[in-house]
Amino acid sequence: MRGRGDRLEAALAERGLDRMLVTDLTNVRYLTGFTGTNGAAVCGPGLRVFLTDFRYTERAAAEVSGWETVTVTGDWLAGIAERLTGKVGFEDDHVSVRSLTKLQEKLPEGVEAVAAGGAVEALRRVKDAEELAAIAAASKLADAALAATVEEGFVGKTERAVAEAFEGHVRAGGGTLSFDTIVAAGPDGAQPHAEPGPKVIGEGELIVFDMGAKLDGYCSDGTRTYATGDPGEEGRRVYETVLAAQQASLEAIRPGEKGEDVDGAARKVIADAGHGEHFGHGLGHGVGLDIHEGPRLSPRSDDVLAVNEVVTVEPGIYLAGKLGVRIEDLVVVTDDGLRNLSSLPKELTYVD
Amino acid sequence: MRGRGDRLEAALAERGLDRMLVTDLTNVRYLTGFTGTNGAAVCGPGLRVFLTDFRYTERAAAEVSGWETVTVTGDWLAGIAERLTGKVGFEDDHVSVRSLTKLQEKLPEGVEAVAAGGAVEALRRVKDAEELAAIAAASKLADAALAATVEEGFVGKTERAVAEAFEGHVRAGGGTLSFDTIVAAGPDGAQPHAEPGPKVIGEGELIVFDMGAKLDGYCSDGTRTYATGDPGEEGRRVYETVLAAQQASLEAIRPGEKGEDVDGAARKVIADAGHGEHFGHGLGHGVGLDIHEGPRLSPRSDDVLAVNEVVTVEPGIYLAGKLGVRIEDLVVVTDDGLRNLSSLPKELTYVD
Repeated sequence: MRGRGDRLEAALAERGLDRMLVTDLTNVRYLTGFTGTNGAAVCGPGLRVFLTDFRYTERAAAEVSGWETVTVTGDWLAGIAERLTGKVGFEDDHVSVRSLTKLQEKLPEGVEAVAAGGAVEALRRVKDAEELAAIAAASKLADAALAATVEEGFVGKTERAVAEAFEGHVRAGGGTLSFDTIVAAGPDGAQPHAEPGPKVIGEGELIVFDMGAKLDGYCSDGTRTYATGDPGEEGRRVYETVLAAQQASLEAIRPGEKGEDVDGAARKVIADAGHGEHFGHGLGHGVGLDIHEGPRLSPRSDDVLAVNEVVTVEPGIYLAGKLGVRIEDLVVVTDDGLRNLSSLPKELTYVD
Repeated sequence: MRGRGDRLEAALAERGLDRMLVTDLTNVRYLTGFTGTNGAAVCGPGLRVFLTDFRYTERAAAEVSGWETVTVTGDWLAGIAERLTGKVGFEDDHVSVRSLTKLQEKLPEGVEAVAAGGAVEALRRVKDAEELAAIAAASKLADAALAATVEEGFVGKTERAVAEAFEGHVRAGGGTLSFDTIVAAGPDGAQPHAEPGPKVIGEGELIVFDMGAKLDGYCSDGTRTYATGDPGEEGRRVYETVLAAQQASLEAIRPGEKGEDVDGAARKVIADAGHGEHFGHGLGHGVGLDIHEGPRLSPRSDDVLAVNEVVTVEPGIYLAGKLGVRIEDLVVVTDDGLRNLSSLPKELTYVD
């Protein structure tokens, strides 16, 4: 975790800050390794302090390294405030109005709180080797769970039962879910965020299966669309269009490329096929400790890709009342393009 | 949901507010019934507006009643801001500093944002009939799942496997978890928030089993401590002390009673037995859409109990390195005392 604190220290200098107070628990975990529910990190030149309360002293000793752990007894905000000095960046996108008000009442004379949200999230975009290994392992587990679920068949089962079968395989493999699984059959697939319901899966339907596992805190994210028998000409055509769109975006991924342009590559294929109106979401997003993080791949993204960022590539076409198709891979940006963490076949697969 | 908006309208008048802007999604759900991930409610005299975006228009039509649904197109905060007037209460305990700054940039001339966090949470303390039924059903499901897990036995299984068995029973009954299950055997039980681990449960151990189910959005919470054979004289004595302490607090519960005093009843029994230092948490908390809500039962609680509040009563004794015992019931405050939603026996139960 030492390198992460060093990168934050460098970012502080660029922003003209003396200290950064990190209170978002995911960001605290990223920096220090701490996984409990109460902790804060204070970073400054040569300073790495992690604060928690007595309930977590033992856990902190086991998890936190490279940061001095302080157990705050008595008032929590006062314990933090006394370690702050000069211009202090705080996470204005996470800290509530009430918490800031209370913190400011306790700040020593001359200490100024400055909005600096996103500083740690910016660091989190680029993954280190340990993080890449965790995400790859989560993705492998999720793919194996999905393959096992496909093997058991869909037809005659409810969407919910199929989702639960997948989730059982993830747990059996030692993982948890990175988000609520989507199993959306036939017209249900036309809703990008459908919840698996009591609908019984029939024959000749397209099934959108969007799923992820979490291992060691890191998420995976992937989608395949299956067919329970021939989905008809329109279904087949839509599938081929989405697959070609995804391929176009995968080929566009490399360091220095803009999120807007990677999105545009898939969007053009879909628009050229006459479905421009039917792809109503962005192409993809970063994945890590959170299932949604930076960078974004979308028509309005200013983000520029860098080596070792991990992003989803997930174009879709949604025909209301009829069907939906989405195909999603999870990829690592590399020097010369990408490494694809998703292993399942992408040609239209028929499932019993 | 109509009555909930009316109660909020009355609370606004008391606080001298013209409008209340509710953005915390649990509070939004409580008021409107909406379960999606983007929505806000604006309440004022005779005014009930629910705002969401196009992704949720359909869901809102199905879920929201008694509130006019508006689908915001374009800028979300601008769509909210144009519906605000006069003194507007906002949830300062939930709204981030950044969100408030952005909202204030869009407020019409003369509109003032006033910190009013906790207004909806205060209403949520007292449950209506529909909520009581949901919590009772969740509690019943959780108790049945725990009974089934006990039936299958503990000895020779890992804490984690036993927790997963419980969770499987909850899911089979159509529920989800209201929090991560605790199964803590022997010395692990001395940590109030232990995570179920790879430890294999042996004979003659005390097992703290803290578990809850969620149904229709409402949580349950309950704990039993089991023994896998005779836990020894100290274990038996600690168990009897915790049980007597719980009984004392259950008898203290009635409308008008202070949270501090209900806590004190159990705390006195434990202190009199020489374990005052070994009960390091509050006696209980409210339960509803959140697993932890008001009122609080603790040595520092100013809360006063009212009819139809739902609280946990969960004293414990934790002997570091040795054992822990906690016994927790979920109860509804009634005119003449309480109705206990927890159904499992509380005499020390031996499990294979």
